[in-house]
Amino acid sequence: MNEDRLTRAALHAFAELNRPLFEGELRTLVDLPSVSSDPERIRDIRLCAEAAVDLFLRHGGSAELLETSGNPLVLGRFDADPGFPTVTVYNHLDVQPANEPEWTTNPFHMEIQGDTYLGRGTTDDKGPALTAFFGALAAREAQVPLNIHFLWELEEEIGSPSFREGLERNREALRTSAVIVSDTIWITRGRPSTPAGLRGLAGFRLTLETARHDLHSGVVGGAARNPLAELITAVADMLDGPTGRVKIPHFYREVVPPSGKERREWDRSGFTVEQFKQDHHLLTLRTDRARKVMKRVWARPTMEVHGVVGGYTGPGIKTAVPARAEVKMSCRLVPGMDVETTLNRIRKFLASHHPDVEFHAEHGLAPFMGRVTGPCAEAVKAAYAFGFGIPCCFTREGGSIGAVSTMEEVLGCQVSFLGLSLPSHGYHAPNENYDWEQAAGGMAAFSHFFMTMSSTL
Amino acid sequence: MNEDRLTRAALHAFAELNRPLFEGELRTLVDLPSVSSDPERIRDIRLCAEAAVDLFLRHGGSAELLETSGNPLVLGRFDADPGFPTVTVYNHLDVQPANEPEWTTNPFHMEIQGDTYLGRGTTDDKGPALTAFFGALAAREAQVPLNIHFLWELEEEIGSPSFREGLERNREALRTSAVIVSDTIWITRGRPSTPAGLRGLAGFRLTLETARHDLHSGVVGGAARNPLAELITAVADMLDGPTGRVKIPHFYREVVPPSGKERREWDRSGFTVEQFKQDHHLLTLRTDRARKVMKRVWARPTMEVHGVVGGYTGPGIKTAVPARAEVKMSCRLVPGMDVETTLNRIRKFLASHHPDVEFHAEHGLAPFMGRVTGPCAEAVKAAYAFGFGIPCCFTREGGSIGAVSTMEEVLGCQVSFLGLSLPSHGYHAPNENYDWEQAAGGMAAFSHFFMTMSSTL
Repeated sequence: MNEDRLTRAALHAFAELNRPLFEGELRTLVDLPSVSSDPERIRDIRLCAEAAVDLFLRHGGSAELLETSGNPLVLGRFDADPGFPTVTVYNHLDVQPANEPEWTTNPFHMEIQGDTYLGRGTTDDKGPALTAFFGALAAREAQVPLNIHFLWELEEEIGSPSFREGLERNREALRTSAVIVSDTIWITRGRPSTPAGLRGLAGFRLTLETARHDLHSGVVGGAARNPLAELITAVADMLDGPTGRVKIPHFYREVVPPSGKERREWDRSGFTVEQFKQDHHLLTLRTDRARKVMKRVWARPTMEVHGVVGGYTGPGIKTAVPARAEVKMSCRLVPGMDVETTLNRIRKFLASHHPDVEFHAEHGLAPFMGRVTGPCAEAVKAAYAFGFGIPCCFTREGGSIGAVSTMEEVLGCQVSFLGLSLPSHGYHAPNENYDWEQAAGGMAAFSHFFMTMSSTL
Repeated sequence: MNEDRLTRAALHAFAELNRPLFEGELRTLVDLPSVSSDPERIRDIRLCAEAAVDLFLRHGGSAELLETSGNPLVLGRFDADPGFPTVTVYNHLDVQPANEPEWTTNPFHMEIQGDTYLGRGTTDDKGPALTAFFGALAAREAQVPLNIHFLWELEEEIGSPSFREGLERNREALRTSAVIVSDTIWITRGRPSTPAGLRGLAGFRLTLETARHDLHSGVVGGAARNPLAELITAVADMLDGPTGRVKIPHFYREVVPPSGKERREWDRSGFTVEQFKQDHHLLTLRTDRARKVMKRVWARPTMEVHGVVGGYTGPGIKTAVPARAEVKMSCRLVPGMDVETTLNRIRKFLASHHPDVEFHAEHGLAPFMGRVTGPCAEAVKAAYAFGFGIPCCFTREGGSIGAVSTMEEVLGCQVSFLGLSLPSHGYHAPNENYDWEQAAGGMAAFSHFFMTMSSTL
């Protein structure tokens, strides 16, 4: 191992030298609209996977597609020696849709504005994936005695339906000593944080059809059932909109409140309500107390309404009674809760109170509780301190990465997090972006992480 | 007056002879997409008004556009002699949008399938307008001693916002002895019915914005307010979806139940629940008892949800928290109720229970209670008996024609109805249609109506 190549100065020089290359590779990936929820993008998903394989080959690694019954997984490798330990970096290359009218640039044509990279997937999760990739290139140049593997998924945004299958089919190729996930968000710029827990997800849709086509509310209104109105009543019976309180019996039964120790760690995370509102362009919140906001986002389950389909949505009003309606919803789950148990409680409640409403389960993701001590946790702390000059604190992540618990279970190793995204990067939002400061610091942090792990494992 | 030209046989021959002409004129009007709710169709509205003026000129009448601050009114005239009485026929030439995916033909390119005319506006209300027009041509050929005027509106589907202004500005030109409206629907084919009352309308929208753009429900969910969920709770507080019961205090206060006599007339109307469901492609109703259905549709007010805007409405689910949401709603009002009173009760309820929700009043239309006795009512009965071989019964119309009470008030004369549409024609629905049987019978009925009125007035 050539430790001279792993100093802060050397890694800074490495990042600056490779910046044009990094930006070019990021553009290649971002310009491929790998929207996994859109069946029409299946070809772009495939092109994105092939571009990823090509990336590894062009940089002297090896790579293959692990086919599943859904989208493939990309397995890229920088192998040093079979005798060395292996660390696997997990990222995903599929992205959210980008249909929001607020986009100021083409979301699938990456634009560089100074140090900022604009486009769908820049921060979630193509930018962090490439940052870890360049961190591995630096570690390889320094001859760090470690095999570094990359597992890039293409179904993360739709709940990883084929991920378990892909892992189980390829246990041998995927054998690893540890997994590091880079798909999480700090609390604020300049203060790295890493999650000790993730929320899960239980998605579902409600539908109701009462006529063959939309009707005239004068002609039939009063006698005709209104499926939008009925679904609205059903949703209101499940959820108090203003407070967010879920009314499904036993919904909160398995929720474990955070410990005093954990909450004191949160207090040191740099979280402020003002910054939270500003980062997410929030005009108003359900509470303005920081501890309550953190608890609600990190340690409490939710029920959300994501969209309502049916009837007339053009300008003004059209006085039709819709023939059918659909409500798109999901719950975030906290550690202790279970996807199936939650969906069953909702299903049962609806069957008893609104038997005509059809319930359709969508993708589910188990919540995850990680470790904040041990060699991997220490390596993460050291990596952040090295790359960004300040140690990280352990908070939680309100979002869900279903792949995490699957990897822990199928690969039988610990999963840790080395996330690089910032709240202001706009995860799942219009004008999603990533930036060079996080990329350059992240490359150094990953190089350092690989170095530490090579001597720890 | 040449009564030989007003026999059933003569009018039948007149209709058959003029059928190609009628179909050509109907196609001209239907192919102009005069959607009054769509600001982008303003040019088509104007073209439609000009086509109507041209129609009168080509058939030897006179016509002019009465300009308003909104869309113009078309005033067409077949004047016989200033000493004769004048009857004015009201119709409208604007139409509903036609964005429903169920259309099997181009809604703005009229298609003739046997005796059926398919296209937006064929039955609501361009077909009945032209039927009355050809009835007037027959009356003119028979030298009926009557001036026959036509008042064709182009803002009916958006609640006639400029109609009163247009009438008040042109009182002299619009002077008339009676108004006959042809924009109502029978209960069933072969059994003419005419409304003794119309429901009114009070439209409104609710909006709420809680962030600048849509957010990631993992990152902010629980603390962030969800405007869709809040509007859903607000709507559910106002309305019980399954039953349709409105929970706004005093909402039903001015509702007058129909008399026993009126309900017995309804029982003779030919109304059946099976036919009602079949005509409107209804799969299920709030009640299956005929009297209850008639009461609900004709004599009870409603609150409907027409559409919900906000969040994600594509395939599957997208776990975003929407930044803003809108619910499009309206109430149908029955005679005795008042638009402003109703809107104020809703506004007050929301201000007290959901103060952040913004309330936007949309167009309102007063309900209308007509007369079932007197010369006009008798002329209508005789016209239906002549044109269709069976006398009409007086029912009610669940829909709203705001222009009706305005004409009664501003023109100071009685307003009656001679409608020709059938439930199966699909008012405001996809695959709207009209048919030759109604058109031919309607021409005869209108000719007879003009004849009777010429001797009555």
